[in-house]
Amino acid sequence: MTDETEATDATTPTTAEAACFEAGIKFGSLYHQFAGTPLSLESAASIETAIEEAIENQPHCTDVTVTVQRDALEAELAEATAEYTELTGRFLEVEIVLEYDGCEVHTRMAMEDGYPLMRLEEVRGR
Amino acid sequence: MTDETEATDATTPTTAEAACFEAGIKFGSLYHQFAGTPLSLESAASIETAIEEAIENQPHCTDVTVTVQRDALEAELAEATAEYTELTGRFLEVEIVLEYDGCEVHTRMAMEDGYPLMRLEEVRGR
Amino acid sequence: MTDETEATDATTPTTAEAACFEAGIKFGSLYHQFAGTPLSLESAASIETAIEEAIENQPHCTDVTVTVQRDALEAELAEATAEYTELTGRFLEVEIVLEYDGCEVHTRMAMEDGYPLMRLEEVRGR
Amino acid sequence: MTDETEATDATTPTTAEAACFEAGIKFGSLYHQFAGTPLSLESAASIETAIEEAIENQPHCTDVTVTVQRDALEAELAEATAEYTELTGRFLEVEIVLEYDGCEVHTRMAMEDGYPLMRLEEVRGR
Repeated sequence: MTDETEATDATTPTTAEAACFEAGIKFGSLYHQFAGTPLSLESAASIETAIEEAIENQPHCTDVTVTVQRDALEAELAEATAEYTELTGRFLEVEIVLEYDGCEVHTRMAMEDGYPLMRLEEVRGR
Repeated sequence: MTDETEATDATTPTTAEAACFEAGIKFGSLYHQFAGTPLSLESAASIETAIEEAIENQPHCTDVTVTVQRDALEAELAEATAEYTELTGRFLEVEIVLEYDGCEVHTRMAMEDGYPLMRLEEVRGR
Repeated sequence: MTDETEATDATTPTTAEAACFEAGIKFGSLYHQFAGTPLSLESAASIETAIEEAIENQPHCTDVTVTVQRDALEAELAEATAEYTELTGRFLEVEIVLEYDGCEVHTRMAMEDGYPLMRLEEVRGR
Repeated sequence: MTDETEATDATTPTTAEAACFEAGIKFGSLYHQFAGTPLSLESAASIETAIEEAIENQPHCTDVTVTVQRDALEAELAEATAEYTELTGRFLEVEIVLEYDGCEVHTRMAMEDGYPLMRLEEVRGR
């Protein structure tokens, strides 16, 4: 009998794990909501602010920082001789800090080896 | 022989029709790119600006005006006792002016009978 | 006096122009709803069907044909040594036929000079 | 000196926490990619399959099950006397199983008290 109880307990998520799950949701939301947005050097600042404020609405999000990589954007527009392109991971750096039930989670998305990598950096307070 | 040529000509889009097609593309883009964005009274202003500047990047777009309907938003948040909701057509009024090859098209999205209706209002210069 | 009336009349959209506006909405919707979807050779068929059936729900849409360009997809995956990528215009060919108030509009999206170009091809019945 | 090392260690994510972060990313992606898709009873089956296959492309995803809630959809369409609506959380039940470095995570999204709730259910193998 107690075996079954213990087996169940052993799979119950900890507070820190739940906090990390919440942090992942915010990253997935941010990326798939805004990827594809028409983007130029002129509109970069307004999309940064809008993404930050939109995602900060979500539960447990204490701080969101979005930086459009102007150098990468400028290089792409120069090569394509275009005035705008679509927002995608290679133009974005994102930091999200989330607090969930006393546990603070720091996460970050940046380019690594040519891919936008979402990474869990620190879990504090567990 | 000439019949075939004439038949082809008769189906070739006019400049004004092409302009109206372009205007429709902008409306569909705007709606399906940004619908679903987490939205609160605090973040309403930044998403308005970001949508305007993003869509103005697109070819032929001369002016985009986006207004989040604060009254409708406030009413929904009060009823749901929530701090944010998702951006959807009932919180949006949009005007887009587009110029294509000398033809100016005015379009508008607003609620009508409970549905967000996208409407072609004026075609000038044809 | 009559001048003013005539000026107003002169800017009222024709049925064919309204049909072209509707066709544009469908293209913008399709592109910005589904761009960014994780895509592999294995999932290409199911996303084609889902896009077709989703857009055919929209008013006036009589036929939507979506073809994922397997060759372009395979080439990209081989170069990146990845198993999936994101759906974007260079992997898509789309044809939409729309009927609006007796007017039939044929439209198409395909790559041209390295860009996905949405084009109004024929307007019949005006 | 060792204090600093220990402090760093204490905040380093565990494998299970990283697995939960990955699971959250998938849920956020799924929701914000497909919310807003035109949806009817006829197109429900194809969007279920397309979402499952698209998200299963993502790293570490072993199983994705998507069920459109036909009853809720039918009720909404009947009330609105419309033939389609937009895909949103209240029409979706989703289960995602993810395996990350020997750790298996079970997650689920379903309606609770009128809200679509994403929940971490079990963490196995830690």
